[in-house]
Amino acid sequence: MTPSSKTPGGLYLEDLLPGLVYNLGSRGVTRLEIIEFAENFDPQPYHLDDAAAANNPLLGRLCASGIHTLAISHSVQMRGFARLGIRPLAGAGMDEMRLHVPVFPNDKLTVDIEVLETRRLRSREDRGVVIYVTRVTNQEGVLVLTYRSTLFLATRPLLTSSI
Amino acid sequence: MTPSSKTPGGLYLEDLLPGLVYNLGSRGVTRLEIIEFAENFDPQPYHLDDAAAANNPLLGRLCASGIHTLAISHSVQMRGFARLGIRPLAGAGMDEMRLHVPVFPNDKLTVDIEVLETRRLRSREDRGVVIYVTRVTNQEGVLVLTYRSTLFLATRPLLTSSI
Repeated sequence: MTPSSKTPGGLYLEDLLPGLVYNLGSRGVTRLEIIEFAENFDPQPYHLDDAAAANNPLLGRLCASGIHTLAISHSVQMRGFARLGIRPLAGAGMDEMRLHVPVFPNDKLTVDIEVLETRRLRSREDRGVVIYVTRVTNQEGVLVLTYRSTLFLATRPLLTSSI
Repeated sequence: MTPSSKTPGGLYLEDLLPGLVYNLGSRGVTRLEIIEFAENFDPQPYHLDDAAAANNPLLGRLCASGIHTLAISHSVQMRGFARLGIRPLAGAGMDEMRLHVPVFPNDKLTVDIEVLETRRLRSREDRGVVIYVTRVTNQEGVLVLTYRSTLFLATRPLLTSSI
């Protein structure tokens, strides 16, 4: 199931039906970006230096921080959401984040999501949460990262409130 | 239970006993850093603009991307691990990541971890995984972020291998 089109007024919690799949776009990553991100947030030798990465039994060569991969995925997702008119109120959390294979310089990451569930808050009629799974693949179609996100989203305003 | 001291040769999987707590340090975040990170990875209005943030019912004022908060926590953690001689081989994933309260400009985040479990890999004697929970608090002692991480770590080399 794929969404038919962008809703002009934006999408609300009720519009995100379980099973909907959104292809949200792609973003590449350069060697310089990998090193700069790692220097700031994840200064492991294998994110900074070719020789150190070659000695790592699991990674083999210089690769992006998993947090960097997550941030790239998030950026594609949030820009895709903006195009679709999905406007998150805030993030609540993530589950089952798994790094499947490393991301290397000049990889291009493509981000899809699938809606799993929506829940209205009992305490507040005007908002709820959407739970969805994100799948990130590289330019060879190999799955590099998966995770489940929970976001707060507004519910569709009552008609009376716009009169 | 707290660790007694840094092991000169570094810490291996066997050294990370369940229940051990490590206080890994702190890091502040400026308004400029929040905006720059958001422009690159999470361009939501409430991470970029005061007026938009004031209109957000959950956040109230300009605050850091949750991914930025996670990246700051990770940076404190990896630098703390390096000081302790803990050298991760690679990250495997995260679970139950929860954003409890927003992080605002000039907040200072303190990062503690507690070891939950270690597991040797059946397929490889030289490595295993450590699972630990991270707790991030702000300068007022309020819990802002919690998550569980799984990292690959080397097991202690056999004595015979160093002869």
